[in-house]
Amino acid sequence: MYNLRGFRLLNVPRRPDMKIGIVGGTGEIGEGLARRLSHKYKVILGSRDRDRAEETSSCTIDLLKGRGCNNCYCSGGTNQDAVDGGEVIVLSIPFKHLKSTIGSLSGFEDKIIISPINPIARNDYFTYQPPPEGSAALALKTMLPESARVVVAFNNVAANKWKHLDEELDYSVAVCGDDNEAKRLVMGIVENISHLKAYDAGPLSMSPIIEGITPLVLNIARLNGMKDVGIEFK
Amino acid sequence: MYNLRGFRLLNVPRRPDMKIGIVGGTGEIGEGLARRLSHKYKVILGSRDRDRAEETSSCTIDLLKGRGCNNCYCSGGTNQDAVDGGEVIVLSIPFKHLKSTIGSLSGFEDKIIISPINPIARNDYFTYQPPPEGSAALALKTMLPESARVVVAFNNVAANKWKHLDEELDYSVAVCGDDNEAKRLVMGIVENISHLKAYDAGPLSMSPIIEGITPLVLNIARLNGMKDVGIEFK
Repeated sequence: MYNLRGFRLLNVPRRPDMKIGIVGGTGEIGEGLARRLSHKYKVILGSRDRDRAEETSSCTIDLLKGRGCNNCYCSGGTNQDAVDGGEVIVLSIPFKHLKSTIGSLSGFEDKIIISPINPIARNDYFTYQPPPEGSAALALKTMLPESARVVVAFNNVAANKWKHLDEELDYSVAVCGDDNEAKRLVMGIVENISHLKAYDAGPLSMSPIIEGITPLVLNIARLNGMKDVGIEFK
Repeated sequence: MYNLRGFRLLNVPRRPDMKIGIVGGTGEIGEGLARRLSHKYKVILGSRDRDRAEETSSCTIDLLKGRGCNNCYCSGGTNQDAVDGGEVIVLSIPFKHLKSTIGSLSGFEDKIIISPINPIARNDYFTYQPPPEGSAALALKTMLPESARVVVAFNNVAANKWKHLDEELDYSVAVCGDDNEAKRLVMGIVENISHLKAYDAGPLSMSPIIEGITPLVLNIARLNGMKDVGIEFK
């Protein structure tokens, strides 16, 4: 299979039965991801607050039904439910909560963990503030069992855009990780969301650059009078 | 003046009499820059080899005349001539020659110095290898007199594309630096080249991210079967 850009694409067919757990599923990006994935995959939306997760998942289903999609799947539960139920887990949480959240959860063995996390500080400008490991994703890797496969994706898509289904996401997504099978599977998920295009960006050691692009585009938005700036590789 | 993106653009009108010195002007990017600037500015093309610089500048003028441009200016000389003659100096040299080149030149006081330099290593992948100062541009700043104003620009435009005038450069250029006047002047130069669009990316401390994007797009090109990948902010 070749895509429009002429290169051999992802040998991984979309599996509608694939279960995707979203840790932090009631946040801006988590909820948006649920809305954009629940008609293509089985989504388990997790939160520290189970009631809120159940409410958000009901809303997601109602919203998608209202748009003519009767065959969607989104269940709400705890963050631990999202980990237990998902084959692929998206960590939709701020960097400052990463360590405590991972410390409070278990069962990551053999799972694919997607990190869209960007460690950013804001003073006069947005700056990239990676931990000593080099990036949020590299730090995450040290917190997880060895069989968990960390893949970086979605970092540079503006948070505001996820929830509004009428907004096309016409951006490039740099995907990096050390396990090629996991990376390809995540690239397949990316390409099933709106107009996002996934690009293999190499090993997990590329994550500092990918995470660092987010404060760059936030500064560019602010300094050039733009909104929700993302990137395209071309 | 407002540009298409609706924000107030560069109070700096183009000055056709502005002199731009290119250190390393016989390299791929330097020669391409000369070709793309000599009909809009006065270009002083420098090289360690004066004869080669003179030859390259003659070729540049002939090439532009052949394309119907009779009013271009490109003179060849030494790298020191480029520094002495330019108000704005582009350092079109590899990172490994930065320190020795700057050490061999003088007269940078009060000049605007454009750094398109990316410290990159290639092993299995391209990796970003900044010096202890944090980036090539931050290291450069320590090598120059305090009155020299360093501005980062052009880092992420594929080297191959500069020389071929039939190739439109339809990319975004992140421009950063600590002196706003210098930054705006450089943004004006950027927007006078092909379809390049200049974006204010904040202070010089953003340079590690901008330089780091280059190994990222080199990896993306290699891993996804693409050529000459650049970026667009959108």
